Amino acid sequence: MNLQDYIRDIQDFPKEGIGFKDITPLLISPEATNFCLETLVKTLENIKIDKVVGVESRGFFFGTLIAQKLNAGFVPVRKPKKLPYETISASYELEYGRDTLEMHIDAIQKGDKVLIHDDVLATGGTAKAVCELVEQLGGEIIQMNFIMELAFLNGREKLGTRPIFAALTY
Amino acid sequence: MNLQDYIRDIQDFPKEGIGFKDITPLLISPEATNFCLETLVKTLENIKIDKVVGVESRGFFFGTLIAQKLNAGFVPVRKPKKLPYETISASYELEYGRDTLEMHIDAIQKGDKVLIHDDVLATGGTAKAVCELVEQLGGEIIQMNFIMELAFLNGREKLGTRPIFAALTY
Repeated sequence: MNLQDYIRDIQDFPKEGIGFKDITPLLISPEATNFCLETLVKTLENIKIDKVVGVESRGFFFGTLIAQKLNAGFVPVRKPKKLPYETISASYELEYGRDTLEMHIDAIQKGDKVLIHDDVLATGGTAKAVCELVEQLGGEIIQMNFIMELAFLNGREKLGTRPIFAALTY
Repeated sequence: MNLQDYIRDIQDFPKEGIGFKDITPLLISPEATNFCLETLVKTLENIKIDKVVGVESRGFFFGTLIAQKLNAGFVPVRKPKKLPYETISASYELEYGRDTLEMHIDAIQKGDKVLIHDDVLATGGTAKAVCELVEQLGGEIIQMNFIMELAFLNGREKLGTRPIFAALTY
């Protein structure tokens, strides 16, 4: 199976000049979803993961699937004011201005082995902010994984030596 | 296992006077997540489901898990301008004003057997809008399921005779 066949290119979304990678054709196929899930977890065989952190919103789709497969807890990272309990936060730069992500303070225990998942690694700003949240609570990042990496945006450069895996690379 | 032990009550969220049911303690426990998943799908044994529709954002957590378990496709319903391809939309009333939900036009085929999932059935406004989206594309709603139903808000009254299941009732 070629996962790329299940990613739809949408031109000029969310704004002009941007080429968006739509994963809904992947989600609508149980076979492609299972294949993508197997691809994402097979690099983690025999590695203990305590928590899988999924990033709002598209990181939630595979986040809970990966957590279940690894028998790990699932932790959502969300936009401000979406999480109801006490939170920590981390900000990151956008093209214009800054944005913030939050995580519950009791989501990670010191020493937890953590896998961070999102659908796309683009400029790396979001991923870096999520790393900061995990590490602020004493979690150890075992891997960051993504359905796809847009390698031409050099997101890896922001993420230091933390291990990164992507099922697809553009 | 008592699922209720994994639901955290948060007073005055998202605003004063509202008691919010926080499902993050459930998501962080692989055992409770599996138990909840089994509870949600066990009413669907031997029933063919083609598509599971999950509602942004908390309906995404169990939506993909349920879809995988039933070997069905997963379809996200999202807030306006989040889905990149051509969409249909349905509006519903809020306490003040109206809100809108969207679904991709190619998400449901005429005759598809559909399960709608969200975390909470409250006033039923969101669930009714999602029913309208599914039925607009010719899908047949086999069941709507929820982690919990806030029965005192009478959401069922808005949903006609469509079958409803909730793992927990408050």
